[in-house]
Amino acid sequence: MLWTAKKRSEKAGLPPGTLIHIGEKKVEEVTITVIDYDETHCLEKEVKAVEDLFPLRDSPSVTWVNVEGIHEVELLAKIGECFKLHPLTVEDILNTHQRPKMEDFGEYLFIVLKMLHQPDREGETVAEQVSLIVGSNFVLSFQEGMTGDVFNPIRERIRNAKGRITKNASDYLAHALIDAIVDNYFVVLEKLSEDIELLEEQLVEEPGPVTLNSIQNLKREMIYLRKAVWPLREVIGGLQRAESPLIQPSTGIYLRDVYDHTIQVIDTIETYRDILSGMLDIYLSSISNRLNAVMKVLTIITTIFMPLSFAAGVYGMNFRYMPGLESRWGFPLLLIFMVTTGISMLIYFRKMKWL
Amino acid sequence: MLWTAKKRSEKAGLPPGTLIHIGEKKVEEVTITVIDYDETHCLEKEVKAVEDLFPLRDSPSVTWVNVEGIHEVELLAKIGECFKLHPLTVEDILNTHQRPKMEDFGEYLFIVLKMLHQPDREGETVAEQVSLIVGSNFVLSFQEGMTGDVFNPIRERIRNAKGRITKNASDYLAHALIDAIVDNYFVVLEKLSEDIELLEEQLVEEPGPVTLNSIQNLKREMIYLRKAVWPLREVIGGLQRAESPLIQPSTGIYLRDVYDHTIQVIDTIETYRDILSGMLDIYLSSISNRLNAVMKVLTIITTIFMPLSFAAGVYGMNFRYMPGLESRWGFPLLLIFMVTTGISMLIYFRKMKWL
Amino acid sequence: MLWTAKKRSEKAGLPPGTLIHIGEKKVEEVTITVIDYDETHCLEKEVKAVEDLFPLRDSPSVTWVNVEGIHEVELLAKIGECFKLHPLTVEDILNTHQRPKMEDFGEYLFIVLKMLHQPDREGETVAEQVSLIVGSNFVLSFQEGMTGDVFNPIRERIRNAKGRITKNASDYLAHALIDAIVDNYFVVLEKLSEDIELLEEQLVEEPGPVTLNSIQNLKREMIYLRKAVWPLREVIGGLQRAESPLIQPSTGIYLRDVYDHTIQVIDTIETYRDILSGMLDIYLSSISNRLNAVMKVLTIITTIFMPLSFAAGVYGMNFRYMPGLESRWGFPLLLIFMVTTGISMLIYFRKMKWL
Amino acid sequence: MLWTAKKRSEKAGLPPGTLIHIGEKKVEEVTITVIDYDETHCLEKEVKAVEDLFPLRDSPSVTWVNVEGIHEVELLAKIGECFKLHPLTVEDILNTHQRPKMEDFGEYLFIVLKMLHQPDREGETVAEQVSLIVGSNFVLSFQEGMTGDVFNPIRERIRNAKGRITKNASDYLAHALIDAIVDNYFVVLEKLSEDIELLEEQLVEEPGPVTLNSIQNLKREMIYLRKAVWPLREVIGGLQRAESPLIQPSTGIYLRDVYDHTIQVIDTIETYRDILSGMLDIYLSSISNRLNAVMKVLTIITTIFMPLSFAAGVYGMNFRYMPGLESRWGFPLLLIFMVTTGISMLIYFRKMKWL
Amino acid sequence: MLWTAKKRSEKAGLPPGTLIHIGEKKVEEVTITVIDYDETHCLEKEVKAVEDLFPLRDSPSVTWVNVEGIHEVELLAKIGECFKLHPLTVEDILNTHQRPKMEDFGEYLFIVLKMLHQPDREGETVAEQVSLIVGSNFVLSFQEGMTGDVFNPIRERIRNAKGRITKNASDYLAHALIDAIVDNYFVVLEKLSEDIELLEEQLVEEPGPVTLNSIQNLKREMIYLRKAVWPLREVIGGLQRAESPLIQPSTGIYLRDVYDHTIQVIDTIETYRDILSGMLDIYLSSISNRLNAVMKVLTIITTIFMPLSFAAGVYGMNFRYMPGLESRWGFPLLLIFMVTTGISMLIYFRKMKWL
Repeated sequence: MLWTAKKRSEKAGLPPGTLIHIGEKKVEEVTITVIDYDETHCLEKEVKAVEDLFPLRDSPSVTWVNVEGIHEVELLAKIGECFKLHPLTVEDILNTHQRPKMEDFGEYLFIVLKMLHQPDREGETVAEQVSLIVGSNFVLSFQEGMTGDVFNPIRERIRNAKGRITKNASDYLAHALIDAIVDNYFVVLEKLSEDIELLEEQLVEEPGPVTLNSIQNLKREMIYLRKAVWPLREVIGGLQRAESPLIQPSTGIYLRDVYDHTIQVIDTIETYRDILSGMLDIYLSSISNRLNAVMKVLTIITTIFMPLSFAAGVYGMNFRYMPGLESRWGFPLLLIFMVTTGISMLIYFRKMKWL
Repeated sequence: MLWTAKKRSEKAGLPPGTLIHIGEKKVEEVTITVIDYDETHCLEKEVKAVEDLFPLRDSPSVTWVNVEGIHEVELLAKIGECFKLHPLTVEDILNTHQRPKMEDFGEYLFIVLKMLHQPDREGETVAEQVSLIVGSNFVLSFQEGMTGDVFNPIRERIRNAKGRITKNASDYLAHALIDAIVDNYFVVLEKLSEDIELLEEQLVEEPGPVTLNSIQNLKREMIYLRKAVWPLREVIGGLQRAESPLIQPSTGIYLRDVYDHTIQVIDTIETYRDILSGMLDIYLSSISNRLNAVMKVLTIITTIFMPLSFAAGVYGMNFRYMPGLESRWGFPLLLIFMVTTGISMLIYFRKMKWL
Repeated sequence: MLWTAKKRSEKAGLPPGTLIHIGEKKVEEVTITVIDYDETHCLEKEVKAVEDLFPLRDSPSVTWVNVEGIHEVELLAKIGECFKLHPLTVEDILNTHQRPKMEDFGEYLFIVLKMLHQPDREGETVAEQVSLIVGSNFVLSFQEGMTGDVFNPIRERIRNAKGRITKNASDYLAHALIDAIVDNYFVVLEKLSEDIELLEEQLVEEPGPVTLNSIQNLKREMIYLRKAVWPLREVIGGLQRAESPLIQPSTGIYLRDVYDHTIQVIDTIETYRDILSGMLDIYLSSISNRLNAVMKVLTIITTIFMPLSFAAGVYGMNFRYMPGLESRWGFPLLLIFMVTTGISMLIYFRKMKWL
Repeated sequence: MLWTAKKRSEKAGLPPGTLIHIGEKKVEEVTITVIDYDETHCLEKEVKAVEDLFPLRDSPSVTWVNVEGIHEVELLAKIGECFKLHPLTVEDILNTHQRPKMEDFGEYLFIVLKMLHQPDREGETVAEQVSLIVGSNFVLSFQEGMTGDVFNPIRERIRNAKGRITKNASDYLAHALIDAIVDNYFVVLEKLSEDIELLEEQLVEEPGPVTLNSIQNLKREMIYLRKAVWPLREVIGGLQRAESPLIQPSTGIYLRDVYDHTIQVIDTIETYRDILSGMLDIYLSSISNRLNAVMKVLTIITTIFMPLSFAAGVYGMNFRYMPGLESRWGFPLLLIFMVTTGISMLIYFRKMKWL
Repeated sequence: MLWTAKKRSEKAGLPPGTLIHIGEKKVEEVTITVIDYDETHCLEKEVKAVEDLFPLRDSPSVTWVNVEGIHEVELLAKIGECFKLHPLTVEDILNTHQRPKMEDFGEYLFIVLKMLHQPDREGETVAEQVSLIVGSNFVLSFQEGMTGDVFNPIRERIRNAKGRITKNASDYLAHALIDAIVDNYFVVLEKLSEDIELLEEQLVEEPGPVTLNSIQNLKREMIYLRKAVWPLREVIGGLQRAESPLIQPSTGIYLRDVYDHTIQVIDTIETYRDILSGMLDIYLSSISNRLNAVMKVLTIITTIFMPLSFAAGVYGMNFRYMPGLESRWGFPLLLIFMVTTGISMLIYFRKMKWL
C-alpha cells in the first residue's frame, strides 16, 4: 500500500493500452467463478477456459464473473475481448496502482475501488484493488486475490434468492458489491479506533518514543485510507448522476445510501486525523514537562548542596587563624547552620511549587 | 459520541434495508406518544399498539407521533409499514451513527438530526439521534430515549394552541422541532464557553498537565460538535430549496431563521476552536518559560558558588608554602573577597534581568 | 463581544417570533430621533410615543428613525407594528447576538451590522449591533445605545443638504449609514496597527510573558473582528445583486464602493493575522534563544571551575607522599597551571562562539 | 507599504466622493506629461494647466496623460471634470490605500495597480499606487511620483513607433502599461530570491537571531507582495472577460499573456513562502541542536569531574585511620585510578556518540 | 529549477513578442529532427535549414519536428514564421520559465510542459521545458536539449508502425508525447520514494542535522514538483474540453487516461508531503528526547555525587573537635554510609524510570 509509484515506472514509454501487470502477484493461480442468476434460477460454477463464458454472456440472466488474481495478462486480455472491453480498461485492471474512479464507456461502466484487509500480524491495513465492469446483463469483478473477500454474503443472498438482489438487474448487483466494500471500511475503522483508544491510555500512562511512532504510524494509515476513500465520493456521486441507461432509476436510492456511508467514513477519518494531531501535541508537551521535572530535581539538588559544600570548603581551608576551629561548639554549630539552610531551601522550593 | 464506527461493523455484509439496531440501548421500554391537533382540537395519548395509529394517520388533522427508544426492531418495522416508509428509511432510523441529512422520498421527507445533552457528572456532551419523518399530515419523530428532551415547550404550545403552530401544517411542526434542537445547541455552547473561561483563568494562574488535558478535551468536544452541526447547514438549506409540495412557501421564512441560527452555531464553534488553539500556544510557551526560570536559578547558584568553592579549595590544599596561611588576616581577607565576588555576581545577574 | 452564545440560551424552546431582549442593557432610556427630509426641507425631532411616527411614515419624503436602546420590548413591538415588520425581524432586532446579514422581506430590506467602538480604558474593541430596516420611504436604524455613534456626520449632511444625500431616496441613506460603519472599521484597524507596532518594538527589546499575552489578545481581537466583518461582504454583495425595487440602479455604484472598502478591511485583518503569527514564532524562538544563552553561561562556568576545583581537591588530599607539597614552587606552579587552563578554556569557548 | 489602514481613518464619516488625499506626499510638485500619437505622428509635451489637455482629448489620436504626484486635490478634480470621471473614481485615485481593482464605468475603465520599487538602502520593497483610466481615445495614468518609473521603455517605443503600440488603440497602451508593471514584479522577485539564497547560506553557516529576523522580514515582504499581486489576477481576468467595447478582441491575446505572467508571479511568491517556512523550521531545530550540543558538553564535564572530585574529597578527609594515606604508593595509585576512570568515561561518551 | 524569476527580469520593459532566450543554454548546437509518417510510410531525417521543412509542412501526412536547443533566437523565429506561429507563442517557447499551460490559437494549440530528469550525481531533480505546437498535420516539439529524452519509445513506435500511433492524426501524436512525459513522472516519484524510505531508516537509526537537511531538501523537491505538475491537470483537462477541431473525439478517451495519471501523480506528491511533514515532527521530537536523555544523565550524576562530596567535605573540615575522626571505624562507617546513599539513589532513579 505504501508507494503507489512503485513499479509503475516500468511502464513509462509504452503506448497506452499495453497490457502489463503492475503490482505484486498475490495469488498463485487465477480463479474464475461465475454466478448466473435470475429470479427463478441460480447457476454457480468455476470456469477454466474463457470460452466457457460465451453462452452465459449472451443469456439474458445476470452473469457475475469474479476473477481472483490478475497477473495472467493473456487471460485478462481474452476476457477483455470476450466482453468487448476497451484496451485501456484492461490496462487499468492490470495496474493495481489505480485511484478509485468511474468511467462510462457507453457499453459498460468501469469502476475501480479499493478493498481493505486487516492482517492480524502487524496491524497494518492492506488495500486490494477491485475493478468492476457493469454491462447490461453482466458484472465482472477483478480482485488481486488475497485470502478472503467481503463478497461472500452477496453470494449467499443470490443463492438463497434472498432480498431484492435476484429481482434486479446487473446495476443492483454492482451496487451490492460496492456496498459490501464500503461496509467493510467500517470494520477497518473500528479496529483503528481501538488502536487509538489504546494509544490514548499509553499516552497518559507511559508516553515514550514508541508512542510517537504509533501516533505517526496511525497518522500515515489515515493518509492512505483517505487516499483510498476520498475519490470514492466522486465515484458514487458520478454513478448517481450518470445518465447511462445501465443504471436504472430505482437503483438511485440505494446508491444514495452508499454515498451516505462513504461520507460517514470520510468524516470519521477526518475526525481521527484531528484526534491524532491532538495526541501529538500532548506527546510533545509531555516531553517538555518531563524535561522540566528533571531540571527541577537537578536545580534543587544543586541549590541545596552547593552552598553547603562551600561552607564545608571554607572550614576545610588551612588558615591558621580561623574562628571556631578550636571551639568545641564550632562543628555542631556549623552543622546546625547547614541543616537549617537546607531545610529552609526545601521550604522555599515547596512554596515555589517545585516539590 | 466518540467512535461513530463502533458496532457499525456488525452490519457489514448484510443487504441494504436489513433492520438492525446499531447503538446503545438507552431506555428500557419504547414509549409512543401521539398528539393529533388542528386549530380546533388537540388529542394527546400514549399508544401501546401500532394499530392504534391507523385512524389518526388517515384523519386530515396533523398527527405527531413521538417514539422514544428505537431498539425494538419489529415495532419500528411495523410503524414503517403503517406509514409506508421505505425500508432504507427504517434502517437509517435504527442506526444511531447517522450523519445529519435530509432525504426527499416523494411521499415524505426524512430528516436526521443530533440532539445534544449535557450530563452534569463529567461535563462531556452526549449526542442523541433524532429522526424526523415529515408527511403531508403527520410528523414522526424517533428519539434514542434519554431522559428529558427539548420538545416539551412545543407540546405545551400545541396544547395551548399558542402561536402559529396549530394554524399550520405538518411542515411547520417539523420546523418547530428542528428549531428546538438548534436552539438547544446554544445552551450547550454556553456551558462550553464557561468551561473555556474557567480554563483561561487556570492557564494564567496555575498551568499544568491538567490544563493541557482540559484544552485537548474541549478541542475534541469541538470536533464532535462540529461534526454534528456542520451537515445541518446543508440539511436546512436543502429543506429551504426543496421543491417538495410538503414544504409550504410560508414556512420558508422560518427555515431561513433556523438556517441563520445554525450558521451562528457553526461560527461560534469555529471561534472557540481558534481560541483553544491560542490557549495551547500559551500553555506550551508557559512550559518553556518555566524551564527558563528553573535554569536561571540553577545557573545563578552554580555561577556564584563554583568560583567561591574553588577559592576555598585552593586554600584547602596542603602545600607547605602558601601565602597568607599563617597571616592573621588571611582568612578575613579571603572571606571579604568571596562576599564581594558573590555580591558583584548578583548585581551582574540583576543587570542581565535574570533576577 | 466575547461569548456570542451567552444568554442566547434563555430563548431555547420559545416559538420563533417571541420577543425577548438578548444582550446587555447598555443605556437607561430608549431615545427615538426622527429626521424627515427631502431636497427642500429637513425636519428633525425626538419622539416620545410611537404614534408620533405615523404622519411621517405616510409622507412621501424620506424618514429616518433612529432608535437608541433596544431593551424595551413593547416599544419595539409597537414600532414593528407601525412599520409592518415581520415578527421574526423584530425578534432579530432584539437579539444582539446576530451575525451580520441581509434579508429581503419584499416590503422592506432587513440588514444587521456590527458597529465597532474603542473604549480607551482597556483597549478592547467593543461591538454594537446596528439593525437597519430599509423601506420605500423610510429607514429605521436600531442601536444598542452606547455613547457616541458614527452617524453624526450623516445627520450633518442631511441638515446642510450637502452632497447627494437629500437628492436621493431611502436606499442612498441606508448606503450612507453602512458606509459610515465600514469607514469606522478603518479607525479601529488603525488603532490596532499601532498596538501591533508597539508590540513589535517590545518583542525586540524586552520579550516576556506579557508580550505573549498581548499577541494572543490581539489575535483574539482579530478573530472577533473577522467574525464581525467577514459576513459583511456577503451582505453588501447581496444588496448589490438584490433585485428588490427598493435599491435603485444609481445606488449600485456606491454599494460597489462600500464593497471595495469591506474587502480592504478583510484583507487588512488577514494581513494582521499573518503578522501576529510571525510575531508568535519570533517570541517562541526568543525564549529558546534565551535558554540557550543561560545554558551557555552555566556550561562555561562549570567547565572552567570543575577541573580547577578538582586540581585543588587533589592537592587537598592528606597523602603523606605527594610530589611538590613540600616544594617552595609547588603552589605557584599549580596556580599558573590553573590560570593557564582557565584562559585556554575561555579561548576555546570564544572560538566556539559561545562568548 | 506597512499599514494600509493608516490615515485612512481621516476620511471616516465623510460622504463618498469627498476628495481627500490619503497617503504620503512623495513628490514636491505635480508633473503632467502628455503623449499624443497615432501611426503617423507623436507629440510629447509637459502640460502646466489642465486646459491644455482639451484639444488633445478631443482629437481622434491616442492621448496618454501621465500625472506624477497626486496630492493636489484641486488639480485632480479638474482633470476628473475634463475627462468626465465619476467623483468616486477621483476619490479612489487620491486614496493610495486601494486594493488593485478594475471597474467598468461605461465611458471608461478604471484600473488600480501597485508598482513595486526597490530602494537600495534597506532592501524593503516599496509599493506605489498607479491608477489607469482607459477611455476610447485616451489613457490617464496617475502615479504617486517616486523617482523612476517602469514606463520609460513604453515611451521609447511610442517615440520610435516601434512594435505594435502605435498601430493600436488606447486599450493596447493600457495593456502595455500593465505589462510593464507586471514585468517589473519579476525584477523585484529576483532581488528577493537573491536575499533568500543569501539567507540560506547564513542559515547553514552561522544561524542566529539575525537570521530569524531576516526570515520574518522576508516572510512579511511576501505577505505584502501577495496582497499587491493576488487581486491582480482578478483585475486582468476581469479585463479579459469585460464586455466593454473599449477592449478590442485583438488585445485579448495580449491580456492572456499578462495574465500568465501574473499567475507566474503568484506561483513564485507562494513557492518562496513555502521555502521561508521550511527555513524557519530549520532555524528552530538548529537552536535545539545547539542546546543539545551545549548540554552534552556540560554533562560530559560534570560526569567526568564529579566522581573524581569526590574521590579527591574522600582522601581529603581528616580521619586518622584511612588506608593508604601513609603509603608511598597511595597517591600515584589513586591518580592512576582517577585517570583510568576519566578515560573510560570519555570512551563511553564516544560510544554514545556524544563526542 | 530553483528560481523561476531568475533572468526573467532582463525582459522587463520590452514589448510583448520580443524574442529573447531566457534560461540556461543547455546544449551547444540546435538539432532539428523531422519524422514524417502516415500508415504507409515513415520518413526520418535531421534538418539543417528551416527551408527544408516547407515540403513536409504542406504534405498531408503527420510531420513531427523536434527541436533540441532553443537558444538560437533567429532560428526559432524562422520556424515560427514557417508554421505561422503568433509572436507571443515564439516568445513563450524561448522563455524556459513558463508555467505549464495550454492555449488555443485557432490554427494550432500551444502546450507547455515540464519534463523531469534525474541526474545521478546529486539526486536533485532537474526540469526541462517542453513546448508543443499541435497543428492539423504537424506537431512541433521544443526541448531545452538535455542529454536523453523520454520520446525515444514513441519514435520507435512510429518507425515500427506499432500500435495506434501511425493510424491517427497529429492530436494522437501530441497525446503520446504528453503521455510519455507524465509516465516519466512516475519514474521520478519512484526514485524519490526510495529516498524517503532511506531517510526513514536514517531517522530511526541515527537522526542528526543531516537528516533534517535531507527532509527539507525533499520537501523542497516536492514544492517544485508540485509546481510543475499541478497546472498539468488544467492543461489536460483543457485539452479534453477543448472545442478545437484539432482534437478528434476518439482521442478524448486517451486524454482521460493521461488525466487520470496526472491526478495520480498529484495525489502521490501530496501523500509524500504529508509523510515528510510527519518525519519532521519525528525528527524534532527525537531532538527533544535526546535532550531529555542527556539531562537525565547529568541529573543522576549530580544528584548522586553532590551529597557524597558534601559529606566528604564535612569530614575535610579542620575543626578540632569532630566526632569519629579519631575512631578506627569512622572512615569505613562513612564509606558504607556513602555507598548506601549512592545505591539507594540509583534504586530511586530506576523506580522513576530514569535509568
